[in-house]
Amino acid sequence: MYPVIEWKDHALVMLDQRRLPGEKKFVVHRDHHDVARSIRDMVIRGAPAIGIAAAYGIALGVSRLEASPDLGRPGFLEKAFRDIVSTITTTRPTAVNLFWAAARIEAVFAQSRNDFPRLCRELLAAAQSLDREDYEVNRAIGRNGRKLLKSGDTVLTHCNAGALATAGYGTALGVVRAAVENGMKVSVIAGETRPYLQGARLTVWELQEDGIPVTLITDSMAGYVMKRKMAQAVIVGADRVAANGDTANKIGTYSLAVLARHHGIPFFVAAPLSTIDPATADGDGIPIEERDGDEVRMFMGRATARPQTAVYNPAFDVTPAALISALITEERILYPPLGKAIAALRGLRRRSTSARPGGGRS
Amino acid sequence: MYPVIEWKDHALVMLDQRRLPGEKKFVVHRDHHDVARSIRDMVIRGAPAIGIAAAYGIALGVSRLEASPDLGRPGFLEKAFRDIVSTITTTRPTAVNLFWAAARIEAVFAQSRNDFPRLCRELLAAAQSLDREDYEVNRAIGRNGRKLLKSGDTVLTHCNAGALATAGYGTALGVVRAAVENGMKVSVIAGETRPYLQGARLTVWELQEDGIPVTLITDSMAGYVMKRKMAQAVIVGADRVAANGDTANKIGTYSLAVLARHHGIPFFVAAPLSTIDPATADGDGIPIEERDGDEVRMFMGRATARPQTAVYNPAFDVTPAALISALITEERILYPPLGKAIAALRGLRRRSTSARPGGGRS
Repeated sequence: MYPVIEWKDHALVMLDQRRLPGEKKFVVHRDHHDVARSIRDMVIRGAPAIGIAAAYGIALGVSRLEASPDLGRPGFLEKAFRDIVSTITTTRPTAVNLFWAAARIEAVFAQSRNDFPRLCRELLAAAQSLDREDYEVNRAIGRNGRKLLKSGDTVLTHCNAGALATAGYGTALGVVRAAVENGMKVSVIAGETRPYLQGARLTVWELQEDGIPVTLITDSMAGYVMKRKMAQAVIVGADRVAANGDTANKIGTYSLAVLARHHGIPFFVAAPLSTIDPATADGDGIPIEERDGDEVRMFMGRATARPQTAVYNPAFDVTPAALISALITEERILYPPLGKAIAALRGLRRRSTSARPGGGRS
Repeated sequence: MYPVIEWKDHALVMLDQRRLPGEKKFVVHRDHHDVARSIRDMVIRGAPAIGIAAAYGIALGVSRLEASPDLGRPGFLEKAFRDIVSTITTTRPTAVNLFWAAARIEAVFAQSRNDFPRLCRELLAAAQSLDREDYEVNRAIGRNGRKLLKSGDTVLTHCNAGALATAGYGTALGVVRAAVENGMKVSVIAGETRPYLQGARLTVWELQEDGIPVTLITDSMAGYVMKRKMAQAVIVGADRVAANGDTANKIGTYSLAVLARHHGIPFFVAAPLSTIDPATADGDGIPIEERDGDEVRMFMGRATARPQTAVYNPAFDVTPAALISALITEERILYPPLGKAIAALRGLRRRSTSARPGGGRS
């Protein structure tokens, strides 16, 4: 749909989401350090997209080792690989897809480490397959989720859980797209999502590109919008879902969940199984990234408060499972109690015992 | 405290709050059209400050009639006065202080209309007395409200209900100031208050000027801040309180009230009696101003979404009385049921029957 991330001429090309909607520029990454920087600086963001970028980034880093005179030395490749993975995975702590993607790539490394050209081919193939899979997963999330909507509904969403946050199509916005493709009349109210304005800059932009009606509000208007019955459902994405269903997502999501409960509006989370982290028991175990205070003090170089102003800037918050009406995955819609529904997921259990990282992270 | 508004050399001087905190510039107003424009464009804002500006603006407009050759013509002064009042009162519909101040000024006009020089002196004196009174009223609100806090508390506030929104000192921030002056250790968390950023630009600035600890957050963080028990009370101002206690205040206030209730945190409104409007039965009767969509589409002059983007931009919302723990006035603290407490206010009843406008507004 959009060339959010693309492997091209031995390099990784990303749409620079920091410049949207004003400019459509692309950043070309030639090694894993570039990729790590782009993840940290939010050239690309959104849990699934970060996972895909991580996989490509590791493949890219390994392929660059070809030029090293030390490649044949015992232990060199193993250590270099660990360094590359660590550079990529220490960028952003909350989105579990990053670690999930790294674990998939590590499994490929373990199998093919003794044949360097084959290793490079297979790492790239793994990243590309993760990329393609994510798109299909989003389509399936959309097909499942649209059953929760009816024609005429307006969906309130937060941040960007759309094509730009994934391999394309989107999770929360994938549900909206699938409904619209099915002939339903669905419109969106997008919270602008301070401090980084992913709602205003990205969600509004990609829905406009698709001709889906969208109205922009400031985040503070959500309660009043619900009170006035202007939205029939809230749908958001997720950066990590704990084993009990507690969900980390963009800061402000928790407020929306409380407001939705107060107004009797269903609150849905749309996320791939790769976002569910059975190794994290509950929300208290999810590390919440705090970002630079200047994101709040400034915007696009304009100061809103003095430089010395004290700021609290958590990038995410945790919504307790009890406030979530349903978790929409590619396999099926999970209903409360979410912990039980998550435990019953067969695909998840298999993956979690075979391909999860060592557990050091969460 | 700050020269927010000042009568000087036959002109009305206002601190241009649109430029804070970057610049400290003053705007000089030489007729009532200038004053109306400054109220509409938010050079000055905050319900009590708007009331004071309105009173001075009408006095200014009338004094300028001195030069008119028609001054002696029958009916001229009456019609000109009506035009001036209408120019001033059609600027912003929600803050009732505007109409309350106009009504006080109209009473002066009725008494002194037959002696033009005396009329001019008395209109100015009425505006100045309203100005001085507001300061004393804020001090009394502060003295009453601080009893609701204890040392060590952190107060979450929204928008700017401070010195900059009043004749000085403030309503919500007046409570904080009074507590601090009383030796209590109180700090503030300020929501930035999109779209106009009164929290970031004004509340943070004026608290920093006074050395009161303040931390800036985006509006979307309020729920998470409450969940983490980082605030022990919410205190906001008001633009209009209906007879039953329903309160219109800056957009986002209602979300905070719902969130505070969910977390068991008291939610206080601090406002002078002049903000209570016994002529409006309940919140449904309060007109909610919708402002230009560019306030949301842009962030301090930089576009965050495309110009054609649909926007919903109510400047205020209404918090039902049931969500308000107490209403702090200069006379006393009103506790629920607020409708009953408001009906029992003696000063309010007297004022509402003698000096309220004809009732056409609300």
